[in-house]
Amino acid sequence: MIGKDEIKNAHERIKPFIHRTATLTNESLNELTGACLFFKCENFQKTGSFKIRGATNAVLQLSESDIDKGVATASSGNHGAALSRAVRIRGGSTKVVMPTNTPKIKVENVLRNGGEIVWCDPIQSSRDSELKNILNDTGSILIHPYNDERVIAGQATVAKELFEDCLDLEIVVSPVSGGGLLAGSLLYLKEINPKIVVYGAEPKEADDTYRSFNVGKIQSNESTETICDGLRAQVGTITFPVIQKYANNIIILSEKEIIDAMKMIWERLKIIIEPSCSITLAAIIKRKDLFHNKKVGLILSGGNVDLSMMPWQYK
Amino acid sequence: MIGKDEIKNAHERIKPFIHRTATLTNESLNELTGACLFFKCENFQKTGSFKIRGATNAVLQLSESDIDKGVATASSGNHGAALSRAVRIRGGSTKVVMPTNTPKIKVENVLRNGGEIVWCDPIQSSRDSELKNILNDTGSILIHPYNDERVIAGQATVAKELFEDCLDLEIVVSPVSGGGLLAGSLLYLKEINPKIVVYGAEPKEADDTYRSFNVGKIQSNESTETICDGLRAQVGTITFPVIQKYANNIIILSEKEIIDAMKMIWERLKIIIEPSCSITLAAIIKRKDLFHNKKVGLILSGGNVDLSMMPWQYK
Repeated sequence: MIGKDEIKNAHERIKPFIHRTATLTNESLNELTGACLFFKCENFQKTGSFKIRGATNAVLQLSESDIDKGVATASSGNHGAALSRAVRIRGGSTKVVMPTNTPKIKVENVLRNGGEIVWCDPIQSSRDSELKNILNDTGSILIHPYNDERVIAGQATVAKELFEDCLDLEIVVSPVSGGGLLAGSLLYLKEINPKIVVYGAEPKEADDTYRSFNVGKIQSNESTETICDGLRAQVGTITFPVIQKYANNIIILSEKEIIDAMKMIWERLKIIIEPSCSITLAAIIKRKDLFHNKKVGLILSGGNVDLSMMPWQYK
Repeated sequence: MIGKDEIKNAHERIKPFIHRTATLTNESLNELTGACLFFKCENFQKTGSFKIRGATNAVLQLSESDIDKGVATASSGNHGAALSRAVRIRGGSTKVVMPTNTPKIKVENVLRNGGEIVWCDPIQSSRDSELKNILNDTGSILIHPYNDERVIAGQATVAKELFEDCLDLEIVVSPVSGGGLLAGSLLYLKEINPKIVVYGAEPKEADDTYRSFNVGKIQSNESTETICDGLRAQVGTITFPVIQKYANNIIILSEKEIIDAMKMIWERLKIIIEPSCSITLAAIIKRKDLFHNKKVGLILSGGNVDLSMMPWQYK
């Protein structure tokens, strides 16, 4: 498995193609939570999410002949846009299998970055079969959104930058879906400082990682009816063992807790973030006891939200 | 009239009490406008707008006995919250005359910062008479939102920081309402580098400065039915002569142009800003010819937006 050296190499490799995003603090949210919060703002990242890191790290390691074959993936949006951009920089083309319930802004983001969309039903089996068809029919190279060590190493650079911005960080909270970001963060942080506590935050409505973590074996979601459209994937076979070994816990949150935290970040920090990452603040508000007086890093993974309707309007 | 020395002094005076806000850039908006844009993000400022600068600069110069008398102002919101905070730091209390159509978030912002609200009708004459009553009845000290040299010197520090972040700035666009921000910016920038072109941006629905600028004499608004709740005041007797002398022009914008630009900033920059400052980007999009290939600073004056309803939903 990758370690801090591979992550350092990934960082050097992708640096020319990504932003070093800001880490923000906010007095009023510190007061409200009783903790000292550091918000790592990947919503300001190129393509609007951290996904550009893993995608770029993987694509830069493809051969010319791989690029010529075309690249494909299945993604609820952010990885699809990121991959499309990374591949376009190398002169190739990308096919993205997307569920039909993907928010419009994420669809547009894939198209704007040069990707081609192949629609599937919003269930894992449809995703899998559409992707398999593409790979068989076209010979495209698969870059998986999270179950890929090159992708995990790229995502880990978020935690690396966060740690560099706050060397005495005591806790990190990361959203978890397929687990690339959380596993990458764990691999970096626990090697750099084994004392750092790392929690995953997951919607109650798609809590496969929470259940998997507790029974020690990958569990599926029967449904994923959560507003967090970026957190509907199932934890991966490569990411799960890392999470099982190193994560301190997985905190699960209700839809209301997630939406309330999202509104709070918009109002206080004045930044646009997805519900898929407001879940990190929701976790801190829910479990204040765990974070009291601690220096806590929150990974705000993305900012691609459909602005036509705010979630607090249809609560 | 104040010059760069007073503005420098104001900056030193207020520095411990304000944020040095970020200046952001954005590739896709550069492409869209054909200019090189620098967004000065006062939406990230304490109390959510630049108004804390002028208010703090004025309040720090009050005597103890002035503070004891209490402070009063009339404000559509951002100055009221800023003044309340500045006065509270000195241990005093603030009365804020606010029109009844003020967005809820601005009302809450005043209350959160310790101000007391006195309601008035949403017309200038009601504002004036309510304020006059308070001053007569209580002996409070008036800190005017813009027609005050201490306030103007404070607001000018936005332009000072923007210029320091981008020394080869060629054009600056500032929103204009009462004119404190625009006049302060002009006084600083035109002394530092007389070649810098400075435009005011104003809603067509409250275009008193535009008309005043063109006829050379202060004109009133008959109505101020604009979404820009921060741009409904009438240009001041102290600010107007500065604007008349130094501004290169005033660009007026329709409600649709302002709302479209607001959505664009939210979607691309991933930050929450008020329509009262998206008007600066609207001006650049409308008059691309003026900004082609230029380095342009845009003052994003605040981020206090009512999130319960997005303006593009009721277009």
